[in-house]
Amino acid sequence: MGSLLIANVVLDGRAVDIRCEGGRIAAIEPRTDDGDRAVRADADEVLDGRGCTARAPLINSHTHAAMTLFRGGGDDLPLMEWLETRVWPYEEQITDDEVYAGTRLAIVEMVRAGTVFFNDMYWHPRAVIRAVEDSGVRACIGKAFFDHGDTARAQPLRADYEDLFAEAAGHSDRVTLSVSTHSIYTVSEGSLRWAGELAAANDAVFHIHLSETEAEVDDCRREHGASPVEYLDRLGLLSERTIAAHTVWLSDDDVRLLGERGVVCAHNPVSNMKLAIGGVYPYAKLRDAGAVCAIATDGAGSNNNLDLLEELKIAALLQKQHEGDPTALPADEALAMADANPAHAFGLSGPRLEVGREADLILIDRERPELTPGHSLASDLVYSAGGAVVDSTVCAGRVLMRHREIEGEDEIIAAARAAAESMFSRVDA
Amino acid sequence: MGSLLIANVVLDGRAVDIRCEGGRIAAIEPRTDDGDRAVRADADEVLDGRGCTARAPLINSHTHAAMTLFRGGGDDLPLMEWLETRVWPYEEQITDDEVYAGTRLAIVEMVRAGTVFFNDMYWHPRAVIRAVEDSGVRACIGKAFFDHGDTARAQPLRADYEDLFAEAAGHSDRVTLSVSTHSIYTVSEGSLRWAGELAAANDAVFHIHLSETEAEVDDCRREHGASPVEYLDRLGLLSERTIAAHTVWLSDDDVRLLGERGVVCAHNPVSNMKLAIGGVYPYAKLRDAGAVCAIATDGAGSNNNLDLLEELKIAALLQKQHEGDPTALPADEALAMADANPAHAFGLSGPRLEVGREADLILIDRERPELTPGHSLASDLVYSAGGAVVDSTVCAGRVLMRHREIEGEDEIIAAARAAAESMFSRVDA
Repeated sequence: MGSLLIANVVLDGRAVDIRCEGGRIAAIEPRTDDGDRAVRADADEVLDGRGCTARAPLINSHTHAAMTLFRGGGDDLPLMEWLETRVWPYEEQITDDEVYAGTRLAIVEMVRAGTVFFNDMYWHPRAVIRAVEDSGVRACIGKAFFDHGDTARAQPLRADYEDLFAEAAGHSDRVTLSVSTHSIYTVSEGSLRWAGELAAANDAVFHIHLSETEAEVDDCRREHGASPVEYLDRLGLLSERTIAAHTVWLSDDDVRLLGERGVVCAHNPVSNMKLAIGGVYPYAKLRDAGAVCAIATDGAGSNNNLDLLEELKIAALLQKQHEGDPTALPADEALAMADANPAHAFGLSGPRLEVGREADLILIDRERPELTPGHSLASDLVYSAGGAVVDSTVCAGRVLMRHREIEGEDEIIAAARAAAESMFSRVDA
Repeated sequence: MGSLLIANVVLDGRAVDIRCEGGRIAAIEPRTDDGDRAVRADADEVLDGRGCTARAPLINSHTHAAMTLFRGGGDDLPLMEWLETRVWPYEEQITDDEVYAGTRLAIVEMVRAGTVFFNDMYWHPRAVIRAVEDSGVRACIGKAFFDHGDTARAQPLRADYEDLFAEAAGHSDRVTLSVSTHSIYTVSEGSLRWAGELAAANDAVFHIHLSETEAEVDDCRREHGASPVEYLDRLGLLSERTIAAHTVWLSDDDVRLLGERGVVCAHNPVSNMKLAIGGVYPYAKLRDAGAVCAIATDGAGSNNNLDLLEELKIAALLQKQHEGDPTALPADEALAMADANPAHAFGLSGPRLEVGREADLILIDRERPELTPGHSLASDLVYSAGGAVVDSTVCAGRVLMRHREIEGEDEIIAAARAAAESMFSRVDA
């Protein structure tokens, strides 16, 4: 990997040059001249940062990336009708190449909107790994594990999961693996225990949908005499490496437990509102209890985009509306849900761009009308901007988007369209 | 005004050429060849529509355009603290030129996001008129009228308002005037009656904030023995030319009255959520009662952008979440809130692009990743797209944005930044 010079960009209010070598930030040098003079070309590659502010990229703590193929294919439907008629019949037959195509499209959208890391749960994980390797982003990748309480069914699935971890040595350091059991109601207690052991043995993230619906909580209390959070804790599955997606139907005891264990609670406000699941993520309670509050898009099937800046705005609006308090979830705390808060759990550096850190960063185009007049960048990013304010995206010292251009984007879009068409026509036939 | 040829664009699923003359659509001709051949240049101006779908632009039914200058200057604050410390002290001293600069910036944002008509209520209406005339969009413009129950204060304000209407003959047909009384709690009964007469005499829209907060409703019941809606109806102020902004704290009787009178109820979901005003726009009840349901951004001070596609998504999400029903406010009904529903009240044609209609239209870039794979354009526009999917914007046969480029945009942004700086530093000094 060659060297990259990000020239004449604003960082923490100063004009600087940022030098990247070997995928890390090697130097941050103040500019004595912040005018329009030509940038120095003493690097293998130069990215002109004039008019832009550099900052950390955003972290998407829960998604099903390949579900871009389902976008717009089943909106305004009740949850079960959507799943049973518009998702599951297709997912049963989805191919490796279709998952690859859908994931590449998702990565294009994320890179355009300033995200270079996502925590994924989906089918055909080897196709997801291939998409991440080929595109230059980072991801924590888990295969969606369901056994529906059927032990015979569980055995080959567990074996395949263990194989996946056995192959990990072949991946670049941009790929990590998680153990992603779908939920407490689709996975047997035996498989949940196995999942915890597999995650511990591999020092991997444990990823699960948790307390998403009222029915999940009611059924769990009936079956296990405990809430879903208490049940997982009893199995030893709550820790700082647990990513719990949704966590909207929580008792105060649940909140306390999630806080004590330092669980990452991945909030998906758009998906929750769109599917009308009723509960609202108790942001302030989780924060105060010590849980790690993080933001996520969920899959494009229930969002329907992958723009974390839009997601942060909706998260802040939902908290204010639900709490009846305009000061709830202020802009700087919202932004932390997309960088500082979840970074550690995924083995990433925090949002501070400094020498030695991985060279992951985005350039924000301060000349955009929606960032004018510019009273507060945090406010403008959360309440006014969408992903379109991201001018350039860098991951591991490689420029993935340069002034809004991504190499190969047209081909990726065409391939995703073809994959969706082929999948839907095959099943509908 | 010359002729415009929009070449090789998709309209209602067919490739066509759209010819505009004298500000109207003069012809829509099917393309026998929808390939990539060079467009015919037998018009004064040609806009290449390849890869795009044409549709009606969006209507913003309630805003305070020049408040772009306040964007990001007072977020995450309680309503009264925001108004008293971050808005009113500045608005008292805002100049004509500052309002012009802020309105030009707002128009750039709206044009970028596919809006060419907005219903405005603000100070210095002559500056707003100038901004609309200079930029090529359409607007219904009202001066914010407050008399705070002070009859002596009301007289010169009324006289100025009447002067404004007397000057109307000098405006282009893109400018209409409204009578915009701020609210029932800031305007005396006498001035409300006067406003109704002025609107009737000029066949103008009557525009007011209505039932935005619980306090407004409680105070009105105490003072007038009626809800704000009933009080306005008693004064004869509810009609098909009434634009009532917010309408979130409504009784069932209020809903029935708004429906019977055919009032345009302008919904501002982002502003309502951001300011935590508590009430939720009763969409289905208003629709069923016969009221005109419309979408709006409110001012950028409480939004903080002017992107109606984002607003529609949040409107749909809020209805689903509040009603506990994922089928509430489906995508096609949401889109109608931005075109078909409010068009008539503002004297505009409906969303159908046909010969004879004013040549106002937008081109949607179907090659965008967030519109892929493209199962449903309505769904994709509401749930996935932001304004960035708009490739080009045409108003009255003039191309205001061509393939994302707006003439003079950089100067408008710089002028708005300077205006905000000058306004804030003058008052803070």
